[in-house]
Amino acid sequence: MHNPQLNKNGELTHLLTIEGLPRAVVTQILDTASSFVGISDREVKKVPLMRGKSVFNLFFENSTRTRTTFEIASKRLSADVINLNISASSASKGESLLDTIDNLAAMHADMFVVRHAQSGAPYLIAKHLTDTGRSHVHVVNAGDGRHAHPTQGLLDMYTIRHYKKDFSNLTVAIVGDILHSRVARSDIHALTTLGVPEVRAIGPRTLLPSGLEQLGVRVFTDMREGLKDVDVIIMLRLQNERMSGALLPSAQEYFKSYGLTTERLALAKPDAIVMHPGPMNRGVEIESAVADGAQAVILPQVTFGIAVRMAVMSIIAGN
Amino acid sequence: MHNPQLNKNGELTHLLTIEGLPRAVVTQILDTASSFVGISDREVKKVPLMRGKSVFNLFFENSTRTRTTFEIASKRLSADVINLNISASSASKGESLLDTIDNLAAMHADMFVVRHAQSGAPYLIAKHLTDTGRSHVHVVNAGDGRHAHPTQGLLDMYTIRHYKKDFSNLTVAIVGDILHSRVARSDIHALTTLGVPEVRAIGPRTLLPSGLEQLGVRVFTDMREGLKDVDVIIMLRLQNERMSGALLPSAQEYFKSYGLTTERLALAKPDAIVMHPGPMNRGVEIESAVADGAQAVILPQVTFGIAVRMAVMSIIAGN
Amino acid sequence: MHNPQLNKNGELTHLLTIEGLPRAVVTQILDTASSFVGISDREVKKVPLMRGKSVFNLFFENSTRTRTTFEIASKRLSADVINLNISASSASKGESLLDTIDNLAAMHADMFVVRHAQSGAPYLIAKHLTDTGRSHVHVVNAGDGRHAHPTQGLLDMYTIRHYKKDFSNLTVAIVGDILHSRVARSDIHALTTLGVPEVRAIGPRTLLPSGLEQLGVRVFTDMREGLKDVDVIIMLRLQNERMSGALLPSAQEYFKSYGLTTERLALAKPDAIVMHPGPMNRGVEIESAVADGAQAVILPQVTFGIAVRMAVMSIIAGN
Repeated sequence: MHNPQLNKNGELTHLLTIEGLPRAVVTQILDTASSFVGISDREVKKVPLMRGKSVFNLFFENSTRTRTTFEIASKRLSADVINLNISASSASKGESLLDTIDNLAAMHADMFVVRHAQSGAPYLIAKHLTDTGRSHVHVVNAGDGRHAHPTQGLLDMYTIRHYKKDFSNLTVAIVGDILHSRVARSDIHALTTLGVPEVRAIGPRTLLPSGLEQLGVRVFTDMREGLKDVDVIIMLRLQNERMSGALLPSAQEYFKSYGLTTERLALAKPDAIVMHPGPMNRGVEIESAVADGAQAVILPQVTFGIAVRMAVMSIIAGN
Repeated sequence: MHNPQLNKNGELTHLLTIEGLPRAVVTQILDTASSFVGISDREVKKVPLMRGKSVFNLFFENSTRTRTTFEIASKRLSADVINLNISASSASKGESLLDTIDNLAAMHADMFVVRHAQSGAPYLIAKHLTDTGRSHVHVVNAGDGRHAHPTQGLLDMYTIRHYKKDFSNLTVAIVGDILHSRVARSDIHALTTLGVPEVRAIGPRTLLPSGLEQLGVRVFTDMREGLKDVDVIIMLRLQNERMSGALLPSAQEYFKSYGLTTERLALAKPDAIVMHPGPMNRGVEIESAVADGAQAVILPQVTFGIAVRMAVMSIIAGN
Repeated sequence: MHNPQLNKNGELTHLLTIEGLPRAVVTQILDTASSFVGISDREVKKVPLMRGKSVFNLFFENSTRTRTTFEIASKRLSADVINLNISASSASKGESLLDTIDNLAAMHADMFVVRHAQSGAPYLIAKHLTDTGRSHVHVVNAGDGRHAHPTQGLLDMYTIRHYKKDFSNLTVAIVGDILHSRVARSDIHALTTLGVPEVRAIGPRTLLPSGLEQLGVRVFTDMREGLKDVDVIIMLRLQNERMSGALLPSAQEYFKSYGLTTERLALAKPDAIVMHPGPMNRGVEIESAVADGAQAVILPQVTFGIAVRMAVMSIIAGN
């Protein structure tokens, strides 16, 4: 099947998921991001790569944090950004998703950054644009349902590469609610694509999806076993709505079994790094001493995230 | 009576309504818009005509779609845009409309784009600015109550001119809830001003205002009769709140009598165009096959709408 | 104790409060603002002083008006502005204030403009940034609880200096709910710092805080006595929530005792000016005839407010 993210020349034209993305494309994004990391330190943090382009932040699901990162990335690329919180507007007027897209595309949008509670919504949009002869309008998935959050996956890879240089000899553990996590899914695909030899998933059985082994992931329900000698620990956010649900006894119980404490962190390699996509629940999935400790690279993730989003946007806008 | 939209030289300084606007002014707007249509196709979709000007989008009534078109138009003219959703702020603090305007004008606003649920609010603002010696601050009506939506009327005229070239031999039908429609009112004044010989209004008697004949409009309650041999069909959106009201039996009944179907469209001229201000209620006022069909020019309306708003804003900012 | 707003060279690096600010710094801000007043009258109202800088408007408490003034000031300095209404986002996800700040700082923010219902929040943020080695990120207090609103205080000083030239022989009366007013507190510190010989506080005993005399303020509960021969009257907004509270009988009663009427204004010097931070409650703290009268300088305050905010932002960004 044709990869809907790539054009005829195999170049990235949408970013919908990391699954199936050629390693060369992933590497190109990381390399390009690298050139943008420096820009954020400069006096004038702007490049004119997307000057006069119109980027629409289409957030059908509220996320100030992610929206902000894309807004900043767009502005540093000199694009014009329009923020649309769609749940509050057309959706309430009964307009369909694709009618909304048609309308915005007719305003000569160059790029849609889409966050949607429904898995697959960005695909649907990209397919619709292609089917109607408007494949010059680009789509970036900023998180769709439980499916994918590719820019988070890419910024995680950037962070790992920054601290570990080489993917080919790493053991990476992802800890928490893998079942509901689009971040976990994107990370697993990215790690596999980049040749990480051992990817582990750690969590309670109720929060581990089936099929992880087929993706090449080793599954652990015991955190101490799972953390043994890992190079990278990616903690996941425990969604508030899960904590009160049937899948988990309580936040306290969760922390007792799967919270990352200083003592548990000691089971990993001494130079292991600790990552988290944020926002953190201190005392639920991670101890504050670890979150603020020397091995945490959680804030560098945020910094790299801007550069990675600039890279994705400028690459697809140029293709 | 002096037209409050024109300055002493007869130049457009506010856009409040199409009623009473000289044909030369309307034509100037359409001609200027024409020069902007090309800009949206360019690599860099910006012109510096309003660089450093401050445009305030004052939306006392929520409308993401209209607000977005003005925001894009402003940014493509290089203006600085400030979005203000007033219902949620000062209004709740009990500040009067004119105190709000005085304050924003004191911040050296150059233009107010005003959407308000009360008919006449933009007039009141324009008059107040003039009365207090600040006529250099411009007002654009982005829809006031049931009264007027002049930029929608102008973009409809642009669309008709684009497809039909000449207004002097057209028959144009406006279909639906004429009574509550500011779009209908603006379209009727624009069509009359531009010399369209036959303007028709089609709808159930309960949704037809009195006085249409005095405006030179032919009234039809039977859709088949009204659509006969027309060149242009402008469908109106049926507001959700009407559908459950006393004025209409139900959405299904409405569609049966006044929905634009393929079969009914065949009564119009073979090259008739179908317009709609959006957002559409598919299956209520228009059949999907028509909305997506070859005669529909609904998305071009949106595209032209950006150029028309750029034209209006740059013309009045220059006067 | 070291003043946390100043760097080692005694230059302003945050603006948290006027209390303790050297007179030279206050004067520098007013002088710089003076150079910006002219810019707002120009055709292109922009200077490139903050081009490529990222300013975050962090409004933990809603205030469209104040947010707008900072947004305009930022845009006229050519900065990129990101508006964040935090109450609606991360706060609801349970993230702590300092985690939010850490994240935004990691996006290479240059400046935080902070409005918060809790007194001291901007201090906490500035201290945290310094403690974690990020003192190049600047904080501007846009109003914290009952504590301070320094840019309002500064724009009030600018206004007084504009009309009265010299502070050294003035009598200034502040009228209303001094107890709950951060504006009053900032004005008192500013007036004292600039050498105003007589500062008066006028209000009902229930709305006068203790300790005013220690600040060098003369206290009056009788408005007629308090207004006698003053040069400047600063009216405060009566918060709606007070009017229904135990501290006040009713809005009508309040107006009867402390409303500024034409007749009472006559007790002040003939050339006295009337100020108000807005939004006004006409008929509660001020009569409309006074608000719109020749002695009112309420709208000039707004205009000067933009220039003063531009001055503050550009000065601290440069230090």
